[in-house]
Amino acid sequence: MSVANRRIVLASRPRGEVVPGNFRLEEEPMAGAGPGEVLVRNLYLSLDPYMRGRMDDAKSYAAAQPLGEVMIGGTAGEVIESRHPKFAVGDQVLGMFGWQLYGKSDGSAIRKVDTSQVPLTAYLGCVGMPGVTAWYGLNRIIAPKAGETILVSAASGAVGSVVGQLARHAGCRVVGVAGGAQKCGIVTDEFGFDACIDYKAGRLADDLRAATPAGIDGFFENVGGEVFDLALRRMNAAGRIAVCGLIAGYGGQPLPVRDIRPVLVNRLRIEGFIVSEHLALWPEALRELGARVARGELRYRETIAQGLESAPEAFIGLLAGRNVGKQLVKLA
Amino acid sequence: MSVANRRIVLASRPRGEVVPGNFRLEEEPMAGAGPGEVLVRNLYLSLDPYMRGRMDDAKSYAAAQPLGEVMIGGTAGEVIESRHPKFAVGDQVLGMFGWQLYGKSDGSAIRKVDTSQVPLTAYLGCVGMPGVTAWYGLNRIIAPKAGETILVSAASGAVGSVVGQLARHAGCRVVGVAGGAQKCGIVTDEFGFDACIDYKAGRLADDLRAATPAGIDGFFENVGGEVFDLALRRMNAAGRIAVCGLIAGYGGQPLPVRDIRPVLVNRLRIEGFIVSEHLALWPEALRELGARVARGELRYRETIAQGLESAPEAFIGLLAGRNVGKQLVKLA
Repeated sequence: MSVANRRIVLASRPRGEVVPGNFRLEEEPMAGAGPGEVLVRNLYLSLDPYMRGRMDDAKSYAAAQPLGEVMIGGTAGEVIESRHPKFAVGDQVLGMFGWQLYGKSDGSAIRKVDTSQVPLTAYLGCVGMPGVTAWYGLNRIIAPKAGETILVSAASGAVGSVVGQLARHAGCRVVGVAGGAQKCGIVTDEFGFDACIDYKAGRLADDLRAATPAGIDGFFENVGGEVFDLALRRMNAAGRIAVCGLIAGYGGQPLPVRDIRPVLVNRLRIEGFIVSEHLALWPEALRELGARVARGELRYRETIAQGLESAPEAFIGLLAGRNVGKQLVKLA
Repeated sequence: MSVANRRIVLASRPRGEVVPGNFRLEEEPMAGAGPGEVLVRNLYLSLDPYMRGRMDDAKSYAAAQPLGEVMIGGTAGEVIESRHPKFAVGDQVLGMFGWQLYGKSDGSAIRKVDTSQVPLTAYLGCVGMPGVTAWYGLNRIIAPKAGETILVSAASGAVGSVVGQLARHAGCRVVGVAGGAQKCGIVTDEFGFDACIDYKAGRLADDLRAATPAGIDGFFENVGGEVFDLALRRMNAAGRIAVCGLIAGYGGQPLPVRDIRPVLVNRLRIEGFIVSEHLALWPEALRELGARVARGELRYRETIAQGLESAPEAFIGLLAGRNVGKQLVKLA
């Protein structure tokens, strides 16, 4: 079975902001499954901020995305041809096939999932990499105690929304930061945060002070910039900051900190992390996250773009914060 | 036995730099030991950077030094009158009597020390609070592994010199930063660092790069400012930064960081600490440090000012980096 594959490759590296011209759509037939192989039709493509880092050629925690090759990315799809004993046509599988309609595997980099309790798309979000990211940063770096105040930036996003809900389950007061009244409403009403600060309202320092009357014990940082500075100064003694992302700096601009002194004065711990370096913990995290979704304890939102061609604009929108919750591309 | 005590009190809080006028010398007779009490003649006064923080009224990890009261400080002395069963005249004791000639205690806040193997003054330095500070930050935060590169700022000081020697014993390449060729010579020749960078030479970035060809795995920070910025950018993946002091900011000026991005890109851990919050570890640390001094494995330098009246100038000199090693005041 040969298929007419379409894929989006990295055409050029961004100079600052990502533009549609950084990507190129290509068509190319893909041969069917060879012996021991599985052919997968991708149904959903996951878009995630980390991809921005891969587009640069700078030294980072991962190799740069090569020019002319299909953009990296997690995918959820179904097996349409199998010559592998462990997979059957119709199986729902997760993979890292990137921005393309089909993918082929020898079975080693795909994982069958049970969609009877957890919808397929959730495996790209709160029961997938973003969920584990939230789980790891919160539990292993912040380690929240009941009664503490936890601040979460990008609170309406795929990671931030999970951080806040898990922290609430741990008995914390949870304060989010998001852009715009609509997102803030979702953060409090749907995700159950105690408060959410609209950073676009222009009174971030005052609002942060009002929302964290007892200071901040744990801060889950996805953004960088002004929020980081202000939060640093409101941290309580022995506070923990998990640096998960710095989306404000993805355009390449430096992210200065006004004064590092609070780190000493309040004995803070600041720790950057990359969830892919903690694979041993994924099964435990995924079990908990899956169970919470199945029980209806963990809510999530998705923003779904239609068709492979929409991926570049959807990705640019993600970087600009135009999505709510998990940004997906529906491929079929 | 009544004694003619003299003491130095905090007369006013500094506006920026500390000046001699911030202190005042007072004379006042001190009554002899009451029932259960011990009267101590202080022989040496310890001067330490943390005292600068106490002089301010700002929120910090410790209460401000009250105006009009004797300046806080560690002391080493001998018992001259005892009405306490556990202390005898002639005992050498450590205390926190502050900047004064005598001190009185009910026995609870003084500690007898054995000076047969370790000189009395070392108990104020590398076998005292500065030594434990070095031990804790290095072992409990940086946790060096053999072959790693460790950077130490204020490397000729009471803390930094111990950090470097302990890291060398752990099999690390150790690079110091100090001010001036003379100090750098002491750091390499006496304390055995592999290299020392003179930050006054005006080519800090180049010298740091040259001295850390394999990057930096652990950074023991005593200073803040430009060294912090440059070191942050040379940290290797999974690097650890122990923030022990920020002496560059003791005048009250902010200590900005140019770009926080390396924390994420290299998954760094930055941790501020205060050694007095880890009292449970002091006995273990002091045993090791004392044994190393007794065996001649741990070297130290002292800068000794003569007489109580010299304490303010000696302290101002300490903040300006005019000392080498531990700054003491010899009182008798």
